Amino acid sequence: MEQKFQELKKRLIEVSDLESAAGLLFWDQSTYMPAGGAGVRARQMAALERLSHEKFIDPTVGELLAELRPYEESLPFDSDEASLIRVSRRKYERAVKVPAEFMARLVQHTSESYHAWTTARPANDFKAVRPYLEKTLDLSRELAEFFPGYVHIADPLIDFSDYGMKALEIRNIFSRLREELVPIVEAICSQPLADDTCLRQQFPKDRQLAFACDVVKDFGFDFQRGRCDETAHPFEIRFGHGDVRITTRVQEDFLAEAIFSTLHEAGHAMYEQGINPIFDGTPAGHGTSAGVHESQSRLWENLVGRSRGFWQHYFPRLQQVFPEQLGSVSLDTFYRAINRVERTLIRTDADEVTYNLHVMIRFDLSLDMLEGNLAISDMPDAWRQRYKSDLGIEPPDDKDGVLQDVHWFHGTIGGSFQGYTLGNILNAQFYDKALAVHPEIDSEISQGKFDTLHNWLRENIYYHGSKYTSNELIQRVTGGPLNIDPYIDYLRSKFGQLYTL
Amino acid sequence: MEQKFQELKKRLIEVSDLESAAGLLFWDQSTYMPAGGAGVRARQMAALERLSHEKFIDPTVGELLAELRPYEESLPFDSDEASLIRVSRRKYERAVKVPAEFMARLVQHTSESYHAWTTARPANDFKAVRPYLEKTLDLSRELAEFFPGYVHIADPLIDFSDYGMKALEIRNIFSRLREELVPIVEAICSQPLADDTCLRQQFPKDRQLAFACDVVKDFGFDFQRGRCDETAHPFEIRFGHGDVRITTRVQEDFLAEAIFSTLHEAGHAMYEQGINPIFDGTPAGHGTSAGVHESQSRLWENLVGRSRGFWQHYFPRLQQVFPEQLGSVSLDTFYRAINRVERTLIRTDADEVTYNLHVMIRFDLSLDMLEGNLAISDMPDAWRQRYKSDLGIEPPDDKDGVLQDVHWFHGTIGGSFQGYTLGNILNAQFYDKALAVHPEIDSEISQGKFDTLHNWLRENIYYHGSKYTSNELIQRVTGGPLNIDPYIDYLRSKFGQLYTL
Repeated sequence: MEQKFQELKKRLIEVSDLESAAGLLFWDQSTYMPAGGAGVRARQMAALERLSHEKFIDPTVGELLAELRPYEESLPFDSDEASLIRVSRRKYERAVKVPAEFMARLVQHTSESYHAWTTARPANDFKAVRPYLEKTLDLSRELAEFFPGYVHIADPLIDFSDYGMKALEIRNIFSRLREELVPIVEAICSQPLADDTCLRQQFPKDRQLAFACDVVKDFGFDFQRGRCDETAHPFEIRFGHGDVRITTRVQEDFLAEAIFSTLHEAGHAMYEQGINPIFDGTPAGHGTSAGVHESQSRLWENLVGRSRGFWQHYFPRLQQVFPEQLGSVSLDTFYRAINRVERTLIRTDADEVTYNLHVMIRFDLSLDMLEGNLAISDMPDAWRQRYKSDLGIEPPDDKDGVLQDVHWFHGTIGGSFQGYTLGNILNAQFYDKALAVHPEIDSEISQGKFDTLHNWLRENIYYHGSKYTSNELIQRVTGGPLNIDPYIDYLRSKFGQLYTL
Repeated sequence: MEQKFQELKKRLIEVSDLESAAGLLFWDQSTYMPAGGAGVRARQMAALERLSHEKFIDPTVGELLAELRPYEESLPFDSDEASLIRVSRRKYERAVKVPAEFMARLVQHTSESYHAWTTARPANDFKAVRPYLEKTLDLSRELAEFFPGYVHIADPLIDFSDYGMKALEIRNIFSRLREELVPIVEAICSQPLADDTCLRQQFPKDRQLAFACDVVKDFGFDFQRGRCDETAHPFEIRFGHGDVRITTRVQEDFLAEAIFSTLHEAGHAMYEQGINPIFDGTPAGHGTSAGVHESQSRLWENLVGRSRGFWQHYFPRLQQVFPEQLGSVSLDTFYRAINRVERTLIRTDADEVTYNLHVMIRFDLSLDMLEGNLAISDMPDAWRQRYKSDLGIEPPDDKDGVLQDVHWFHGTIGGSFQGYTLGNILNAQFYDKALAVHPEIDSEISQGKFDTLHNWLRENIYYHGSKYTSNELIQRVTGGPLNIDPYIDYLRSKFGQLYTL
């Protein structure tokens, strides 16, 4: 059995090596590749992805997994070996259910759809993408049908990123969250807008990057096993336990961009850097779900990085870095600026309070489309109505309305939004638990110390990789299921100090 | 036939995509990879190299090549299609002759041998590497035996990098070259050593890099299709027609290092950037041989970059970059410094005149070992004797003697040195021809103009990729075979102006 287990690991590692190489091609494309490299890079990435997929769905892998079942069952559920086999089997079974022919069609279509969107959005031309979106919906349904037996058609799609989370449960939780959020947003937005002019000055790029890197180094991001580079769109990427990189985006005329992008991606990366190295190169060697991943990026970005305690320590250092720009700005002014709440039309620019409203609109509309309760032709109106009812503003056009977000135009419909809001809910739930065990965390943060928090997260969340599904992990860490109360409490407490709620 | 040709190209491109990905893993390892990435990087590269080799030696490729033979024979020899098939067949036939089992043994051994050398050299301990070198010799012979019918046992090994060049012819040519060089070196070294203190000051890294990049941009290295980064060991690497990168090494206390490394690697890169894009992703889409490749790096580094005319134009600019260091240095002093000739023990530090003596010692000893005329145990003495007779100096120890050069300890014996000296011979032969057609080249260089030279090289050499073997190319470009006279004339003329010869 030991030999078969090693044979399985060997095959999984080969798949992982091909994925890492494809990942490096992507990282390079985003960072240092000269313009002339673009022509063949997509083909090179596709070749590696096709090969790694072929190697993963090789029948021998399935046979090994079948042969290893008695071994797995002889071990405790949460032993590393049993977990590695269990997670690999789950991903293998999912991978073999989708025919290669379908994947090729899907990739081809999403690529064409994305291309159409890049010109349709600036032209404010929803009609131009409507047929693409209709086909995307068909393909999304077709993809779901490879996994019969679901309760809701979105369930198999959600499983790709948040395994085990169910559409109807999420919709129910989101509905309660919306009921809480809408009045908070209304209350805040009836009060004067926070002044963020202190962030909108000229801040030289190099000093912004150096400051942000210093902070994430203090967090515990390990630069011996990672690095940080500039890209148009920030991301985190793992090439192995010893190499987890982040990228960030700098705006010289807006200080918040680089700092909070870096803190956010470092949260993702610290999760990946903290995974038990025994899982390296296997399906268990990644964060367990989009939602749990996002909980860590948001925790470090917001719960830590936008807290008053954090800036009590770091604002004087930031003032030293930018004495001309910030020397005469008070901590209070700066703190209000980085926590400014505002109704806007663009999800990725949204603040901590309104962000989830954007996400939930997209999630609900996705389910409506999949259920057949919303025709693509009615989408521009549906989008406008939901922005009006939830956020109290209405997009003046489709460009900043239904065409605003790239996701539907570059992937399937139904599995890609929930993780963002699940992450926000979870980051408060996890942080609450950490504080209950270590009440000193808050005061440590205001001294620029993060070890207690980081160690607790590493032990309880990071180390396990994908050993536990997100639901198992939530239960294990917090003692209960997904729960919005800590998040609502957090928002009420934090923003209750900044606004009259 | 057209369809089979496209099928062949498709398969070759997939192989090339895997090679490019392996190449990017190497480039990244050398430039930006964090230390923690080292653990699995070698494994990841090996996985890709194994896969690309497997895909290339797939019997289907052989069948396609066989089926395409009538098509190839129906086309002119130098048509792109016929050339692509011919070069692919040659490389395919070579690849299938070496069993995978042998390659695995060879890779394993050279890795162990290299590891042993890295500690044996500083310890001056030849005994520690002797058994490795003996096994390397056995494996080199075993490799050659997969290609029966050779005249000299080194011929099949030379074919890997300088296809068609024959050991006995090279030995004969090198012998004549040595007869010419030894007295030149003796004459120069009996005169006072040139003063290079002007190069041995503090030169900030960024300004060195910026200057070197400006020069190679003027040469015609296309930064839209390439880039330049810093590494411990400079190299050039191709990821496709649109992405050919170079790396360089900077010493802040020695100005010549970064400049001439960059010019050298840019020569390699301009060759690759200039290849007919129709060959991209196929075995024909690379420079044709190590010797011709080196002729281009050395041409731009030495014939152009160490010429007086070149510095008539660039030295005033360099003085502007480093006014404190070079403001009071004369062009003549600088020109003598960068062309200082000196008997040293280290090949890679050697000047234009002595360099080939180092190379030819290694080449001759390789043949002696392969022929069985020199036992590994006698190598330290043989090395010392040749340094004494050829260069007039004797290494004080094995560290800077037989252990000095990495090649034998990190590859096979017999195929890796000739390219350096062939490149020197050829660069003068090609340059001579270019001047015969365009006598204005010399005066253009002294105005910082390189178009005429670059275009001539591109049309006559670069564009063809591997369409012609090196012997075919030499004949085609110069109208005759390999010939040392232009190189000797060049050295006599250039160094006759600097020294009494």
